[in-house]
Amino acid sequence: MSKHLLIRGGTLVTADDERRADLLVIDGKIAAVSTADEGLDAPAGARVIDAGGAYVMPGGIDPHTHMELPFMGTVASEDFFTGTSAAAAGGTTMAIDFVIPSPKEPLLDAYTKWRGWAEKAACDYSFHVAVTWWDESVHADMGTLAAEHGVNSFKHFMAYKGAIMCDDEVLVNSFTRAGELGALCTVHAENGELVWALQQRVFEAGITGPEGHPRSRPPEVEGEAANRAIRIAEVLGVPVYLVHTSCIDALEAVTRARLEGQRVFAEVLAQHLVIDDSVYRDRDWDRAAHHVMSPPFRPKHHQDALWAGLASGMLQTTATDHCCFCTPQKRMGLDDFRKIPNGTNGIEDRMAVLWHHGVRSGKLTPSEFVAVTSTNAAKIFNVYPRKGSLAVGADADIVVWDPKRERTISAATHNQNIDFSIYEGMEVIGAPAYTLSRGRVVYEDGQLKTEKGTGRYVDRPCHAPYWAAQRLRNEGAKATAVERTLPTPEEG
Amino acid sequence: MSKHLLIRGGTLVTADDERRADLLVIDGKIAAVSTADEGLDAPAGARVIDAGGAYVMPGGIDPHTHMELPFMGTVASEDFFTGTSAAAAGGTTMAIDFVIPSPKEPLLDAYTKWRGWAEKAACDYSFHVAVTWWDESVHADMGTLAAEHGVNSFKHFMAYKGAIMCDDEVLVNSFTRAGELGALCTVHAENGELVWALQQRVFEAGITGPEGHPRSRPPEVEGEAANRAIRIAEVLGVPVYLVHTSCIDALEAVTRARLEGQRVFAEVLAQHLVIDDSVYRDRDWDRAAHHVMSPPFRPKHHQDALWAGLASGMLQTTATDHCCFCTPQKRMGLDDFRKIPNGTNGIEDRMAVLWHHGVRSGKLTPSEFVAVTSTNAAKIFNVYPRKGSLAVGADADIVVWDPKRERTISAATHNQNIDFSIYEGMEVIGAPAYTLSRGRVVYEDGQLKTEKGTGRYVDRPCHAPYWAAQRLRNEGAKATAVERTLPTPEEG
Amino acid sequence: MSKHLLIRGGTLVTADDERRADLLVIDGKIAAVSTADEGLDAPAGARVIDAGGAYVMPGGIDPHTHMELPFMGTVASEDFFTGTSAAAAGGTTMAIDFVIPSPKEPLLDAYTKWRGWAEKAACDYSFHVAVTWWDESVHADMGTLAAEHGVNSFKHFMAYKGAIMCDDEVLVNSFTRAGELGALCTVHAENGELVWALQQRVFEAGITGPEGHPRSRPPEVEGEAANRAIRIAEVLGVPVYLVHTSCIDALEAVTRARLEGQRVFAEVLAQHLVIDDSVYRDRDWDRAAHHVMSPPFRPKHHQDALWAGLASGMLQTTATDHCCFCTPQKRMGLDDFRKIPNGTNGIEDRMAVLWHHGVRSGKLTPSEFVAVTSTNAAKIFNVYPRKGSLAVGADADIVVWDPKRERTISAATHNQNIDFSIYEGMEVIGAPAYTLSRGRVVYEDGQLKTEKGTGRYVDRPCHAPYWAAQRLRNEGAKATAVERTLPTPEEG
Amino acid sequence: MSKHLLIRGGTLVTADDERRADLLVIDGKIAAVSTADEGLDAPAGARVIDAGGAYVMPGGIDPHTHMELPFMGTVASEDFFTGTSAAAAGGTTMAIDFVIPSPKEPLLDAYTKWRGWAEKAACDYSFHVAVTWWDESVHADMGTLAAEHGVNSFKHFMAYKGAIMCDDEVLVNSFTRAGELGALCTVHAENGELVWALQQRVFEAGITGPEGHPRSRPPEVEGEAANRAIRIAEVLGVPVYLVHTSCIDALEAVTRARLEGQRVFAEVLAQHLVIDDSVYRDRDWDRAAHHVMSPPFRPKHHQDALWAGLASGMLQTTATDHCCFCTPQKRMGLDDFRKIPNGTNGIEDRMAVLWHHGVRSGKLTPSEFVAVTSTNAAKIFNVYPRKGSLAVGADADIVVWDPKRERTISAATHNQNIDFSIYEGMEVIGAPAYTLSRGRVVYEDGQLKTEKGTGRYVDRPCHAPYWAAQRLRNEGAKATAVERTLPTPEEG
Repeated sequence: MSKHLLIRGGTLVTADDERRADLLVIDGKIAAVSTADEGLDAPAGARVIDAGGAYVMPGGIDPHTHMELPFMGTVASEDFFTGTSAAAAGGTTMAIDFVIPSPKEPLLDAYTKWRGWAEKAACDYSFHVAVTWWDESVHADMGTLAAEHGVNSFKHFMAYKGAIMCDDEVLVNSFTRAGELGALCTVHAENGELVWALQQRVFEAGITGPEGHPRSRPPEVEGEAANRAIRIAEVLGVPVYLVHTSCIDALEAVTRARLEGQRVFAEVLAQHLVIDDSVYRDRDWDRAAHHVMSPPFRPKHHQDALWAGLASGMLQTTATDHCCFCTPQKRMGLDDFRKIPNGTNGIEDRMAVLWHHGVRSGKLTPSEFVAVTSTNAAKIFNVYPRKGSLAVGADADIVVWDPKRERTISAATHNQNIDFSIYEGMEVIGAPAYTLSRGRVVYEDGQLKTEKGTGRYVDRPCHAPYWAAQRLRNEGAKATAVERTLPTPEEG
Repeated sequence: MSKHLLIRGGTLVTADDERRADLLVIDGKIAAVSTADEGLDAPAGARVIDAGGAYVMPGGIDPHTHMELPFMGTVASEDFFTGTSAAAAGGTTMAIDFVIPSPKEPLLDAYTKWRGWAEKAACDYSFHVAVTWWDESVHADMGTLAAEHGVNSFKHFMAYKGAIMCDDEVLVNSFTRAGELGALCTVHAENGELVWALQQRVFEAGITGPEGHPRSRPPEVEGEAANRAIRIAEVLGVPVYLVHTSCIDALEAVTRARLEGQRVFAEVLAQHLVIDDSVYRDRDWDRAAHHVMSPPFRPKHHQDALWAGLASGMLQTTATDHCCFCTPQKRMGLDDFRKIPNGTNGIEDRMAVLWHHGVRSGKLTPSEFVAVTSTNAAKIFNVYPRKGSLAVGADADIVVWDPKRERTISAATHNQNIDFSIYEGMEVIGAPAYTLSRGRVVYEDGQLKTEKGTGRYVDRPCHAPYWAAQRLRNEGAKATAVERTLPTPEEG
Repeated sequence: MSKHLLIRGGTLVTADDERRADLLVIDGKIAAVSTADEGLDAPAGARVIDAGGAYVMPGGIDPHTHMELPFMGTVASEDFFTGTSAAAAGGTTMAIDFVIPSPKEPLLDAYTKWRGWAEKAACDYSFHVAVTWWDESVHADMGTLAAEHGVNSFKHFMAYKGAIMCDDEVLVNSFTRAGELGALCTVHAENGELVWALQQRVFEAGITGPEGHPRSRPPEVEGEAANRAIRIAEVLGVPVYLVHTSCIDALEAVTRARLEGQRVFAEVLAQHLVIDDSVYRDRDWDRAAHHVMSPPFRPKHHQDALWAGLASGMLQTTATDHCCFCTPQKRMGLDDFRKIPNGTNGIEDRMAVLWHHGVRSGKLTPSEFVAVTSTNAAKIFNVYPRKGSLAVGADADIVVWDPKRERTISAATHNQNIDFSIYEGMEVIGAPAYTLSRGRVVYEDGQLKTEKGTGRYVDRPCHAPYWAAQRLRNEGAKATAVERTLPTPEEG
Repeated sequence: MSKHLLIRGGTLVTADDERRADLLVIDGKIAAVSTADEGLDAPAGARVIDAGGAYVMPGGIDPHTHMELPFMGTVASEDFFTGTSAAAAGGTTMAIDFVIPSPKEPLLDAYTKWRGWAEKAACDYSFHVAVTWWDESVHADMGTLAAEHGVNSFKHFMAYKGAIMCDDEVLVNSFTRAGELGALCTVHAENGELVWALQQRVFEAGITGPEGHPRSRPPEVEGEAANRAIRIAEVLGVPVYLVHTSCIDALEAVTRARLEGQRVFAEVLAQHLVIDDSVYRDRDWDRAAHHVMSPPFRPKHHQDALWAGLASGMLQTTATDHCCFCTPQKRMGLDDFRKIPNGTNGIEDRMAVLWHHGVRSGKLTPSEFVAVTSTNAAKIFNVYPRKGSLAVGADADIVVWDPKRERTISAATHNQNIDFSIYEGMEVIGAPAYTLSRGRVVYEDGQLKTEKGTGRYVDRPCHAPYWAAQRLRNEGAKATAVERTLPTPEEG
């Protein structure tokens, strides 16, 4: 592969602006960007990509995926190679996956296991680490992960009672620890106690199929948990990040906090933006079961609010929670919806879905598209401008986007390792012409060019820039509080 | 005492309207109300009270008091006789107190104990019963209390970790049980886990005095818990009642829910309407400590919101959480604010504070005053129109209110059994001229006429009228959910 | 007709409570109400109505009707006799209609004209008077109407540019004058300038049919005007009443103000609660045209918000804007939707629609039903407790409601003078068994018994009770403002 | 002056990130930016500025100033040279001023006049043009200004009745025209009719001094107008920009709209963030009068909301409305607050006030500071990345910011041409070490180096990027509306 590569004639789009420019890649990094007036000359031997009529954008970052996840008695069908390859086919060049220790499993052990699995990845990746239980060793391991392993974000599940659920005590301990480290707490917000109660209630009412799933996890349980996590973070003086915000109820909790100036970040899945809960009324059990994920799909009116949340900046990132289970796996829950493995495909089509339904409808500008598919995640998880930008010196994770290419999404043609697509039959306009991972062309002309193991683990340092502001604010609050204690009657 | 009593020439004020009328009491009940045009003649031997220039209103109902409460290693100084006497002096003729079982203590045992203590009461009273733990016996006792003892409301503390705090599991169990019974769940909303963490943090920072108290219980912890309780009630399909809503954060949770049509009730203490958190900066330790209650007093801007909440109907009732501890008791926490018994006086002056600051400023009409001091509580706790009304047939719990009487509140002159008043020095206009408890004059000419044991326990039946609507709504939701389950691939 | 009438065995429902009781009517007024324990004996010669299994409630008050209105080149087909008769058939016993002077027409002249038309009414009625222009004579006439003619409410149209629209200057003048009088300003809230611009835009785009109507009056134009009127009232220190709140946008303006403690009242039409804008896509021009009213019907999701607004108390009254035009009249706008006379039927079925869709679904309790169909209007327009109550001494405007009677609404069977019903085919459960107007049975066994001219004009005095609170509040604000002016540099 | 200039060793801060880098300026433009790893060599003859310990940021853009404005019978004391010099002293390198035609004055005439006055400017500048009246010539001139004179924003005053106030008809016409041109409408939001009425009321109540000013312009009149302008823009499908948002009431209108996805921009003045309405109670008439501006200063609690608005992105820009009148000018209103010329100083200290109170308190990160003082204005008014960025090719409008420099603001030392400072005595930390205007050092070592006439007029093209999204959205809405008209009964 050529070490020099020139992308010529395209419109560069960043989170800040759009402009005509050429872009030169050398040794996997962006080496030069032309002005609008004069282009760049191709160095000798350089490959030249013609981006005329196309947009040249930072490759997508999917901050929420689960490759090869052991879950609910099976293992997600997509591995790190197939998953990152599918990502590349869709214009996404980095995924942040999750290390999820079992209760009592040391965090470092789990981390090491996941790092091993991920070595086959074809694009760059990183790991959030879940805190699923608490003792002093967890406290210590969080420090080690942050200091020595480039982990700056920890995940907390407020659902899945009896398995990986955190109660308030664990949340308070872990948020406090993350605050010491300058790491970011992320949260799966559903009230697990209510989900548990509703699951029994629904099942005992004789509803055993996939249609029982959304009934056991209504928007209110997400709204409750979202607000609780945000309040805990506020009181403890730490930023917080909500994964897969799926409904008005949770969005309102985010909005309330942000409007008061709190540093709350929130993610939305591309799926929740365009698919509604009518899928659970599908007469085909398999199709319905393939939509079983948590949080579930919501009544249609939630979608408008989520789109507006992206446009207004209340939601900053888009992800997929990509977690594939094939039909035989889904059928583990034939008699009991509670046993259907939770998860859907998503990583390959996130960018196209956002472009088609977001940019082409005028909901988002191209710059806003870049922000919510890539740049904001890079900033929040502190890998900007190495990732998520087109700045000179950045990793050449780039997608050349053809805004006119039409296609129909289908499991028959997708690159994801799953026998189903929740977007089956959706016609979208806009698709990658080329995808580059650190300068390497990993997708072009509709063909994957990925190779196992070319992806690299991305260290993410603690103390993202917003932490400095958070600390100044905390100190201000503390300063007000350090008036000395009142004299007691004996003293005074 | 005369069995016939005529109140002549006053302006009757109910939650609905104001009008000139005479009112006749016979045998403790309201026997007749005149029209505006022609008055009533006094029966032979009847005592006649001249209410010219005065308002004749239903006696106040304080739905939140703690007489003789064993708490934090001591016992509240006000007993049921002194407390209900002080109430009468202020125009309040019924109190709803709390039975608070210790963890593992059978609810019925605790109930019996409290009933015994209350026999000395001078005005009518009733009991909420707290659910502080859970097992099958609690489930059974709730049923017995509802069916046989006139208990239609159960209390839940979300704070006081390690003592009487409920976690989500207990809340879900108890709310569900109350739903079966048609009883009302009430909630003390503060996130106990956060309070606990903040208490350690503040104390370890060297803040040991009363000023540490509000710092360990900021408005956010109340807002969180309020929202959580409301969401749990929503999901389980039961009404819910928040006690002592003290801040914008909790009020917003109430408002959000009510605007969506949920049956949420909320109470505010008279104290929180007029006293702010500057009391904790008092250089006198005792004065500061006497304001230690939970939730604590809040920054001043919360007061406007609470008044507006009363005016707009988002808050329905006013109470006092009357729970007296004398100075030596408060000094149990000299070295550690966490050991200061929580509670303040309040029952005697609630009506005057509401009248002076609410009605005289134009925030409330006289009818709204009656609604929030008496009628709404009677409706919510299902003793209307026996209490809280001036209807023929109602108990003659009446206050004749002199809107011109001026006085200065002081511990030196009050009737409460505590050596301190949080309203010390407050000048108010408007006071009771006469208070009647079931037709008996218990206060007149500034003199108490109460007698021990004349108060009666008030049975409160389950299934208040709003329950019928709640059940219709729940059935509607369920009906939508009873579509039969999908055929599985094997069947279909 | 018997001067004595006993209603026996029913459940009396008021805005406050439900209870079993008998009710005695003498000479058109409520003479006695029994206790729950013992019933009333029928006086000799009294007619006895068996209300077993039925609810006995205050007759409905429709605070917004237009009988015989000259409008858009024609005259509404329903006159005061047919209209009040249809009202009686539906359980409504009082209507508040509108005097609408043409620009430059003296208010008193118009008032006299309308009084004459209304003499044929079969139930009681009253009049709001519209302020459609401004000069000193309008200022004077408002005073005369208030002082001598029992008018305590004035109406303002913010739409209908070039006809009866008020600009901000007129609103400020009229609201200020109403404030002097203690009268209530009511407002039709749509931004007339925007409606005008959109009408041209839509028509010029070739959309000439009824489907152009809602496009020229989107919810935003109502939201804007609602907020403007409320803000003007707030600044000038007067209460304000919004007629026909039809959408979330306007409801949010109302809610914002009420949550800040402002005295804002708002009405919703029964029609807007159950009919959505799909009616304008009806392929039958006549059916679509029959739904042309302003504000138009809205997308379905607005309905949930309106119902919740009633339940939460943000909306206090329900009305109909009953304004009938028969098919030939509607066809005046065959070529131009702007010429279709605006208005629909409604007065006959308001109570049934509210009962069926509100009470039977659990959205409203029976007491809340009484409040929003009758009592609240009586209080706001200051005719309570003469109207809207079951108090001894009140006018015997009563409906005996059979909650089990099923029927299908149809123009073929209704009593309204219009060849169409917007509720055609709607099945409802719950209907009047008897309707009484001042003690006179005007409807029974499905038969009208109304007679021309038996209705009476109802004087409505100024200075409703909420005005006293408003004035206290205004004085408080003014007091803060009366600090003397600063010394100027010359003086100081 | 050297044509080559190297800024070495500083921390570059943009709206996106912070990083250590050197920056080279050639011929007034940014020619190179180093990577973090290796610095830049100084070209021969280049001046080298040592930025060690300092932040290197885009120069501030003040999007709201009034130099030499003829207003209320006098002329603002600050001219374009003194004003842009003072700007430079504070780190601001571009101002957008206003052309304000008198009613009936042709827009182009006014524009030409202002262009002449501005030729003496020492930094770059541009002009919004106000639409103060309407006829076909205004329609035409707007087109000419947009096409030939680089004007992409038009201003509308909703206040100042009888002078430059627009009524709704003018707003609708002008917003529609701006929509055709792809220009941005900006709005001074105060309800002029209410201001007028309150001014008379307050003055007639005998309040003639400056303390009458805020009483005649309460937050509600701003909230009303803000919401109205936003709704008009929404209905007409155009973006809108609110100048000087000063209160919660207006901010809520902005927030509501943005949360629904509407393209609304809003500006806040540095003054309103830190000064409250206690200034009008100053016993010194002159000091009070010097704070007379519109909107006036607000009660303190509004400030928290405005800061949170900046942090959450609801407010995007900070400005000053810099409009200076010296004491003798202010005294024109000695006998009547309505005659005090409105306006305060501000341009010199905006950056320092934002840094000290915003960044140092943790409310804003340094990147957010750059966004709200410079970058966002450049994007909204479509001069990005030429202005507001540190990109290669951008104008070298740069401030080197010393975060440790302490100073006390005072009229005695400031560079503004006014005998008063509203920040008198305020101690701030953080100040410019150097300011560059297109590569020219215009301020260093506390000394101004500006020269008359070196500033250039900046053309601002229409069709900023957000317009493309707006048009796509409008087309989508229109598409839904182009269903053909229904057949009429005759046709069908």
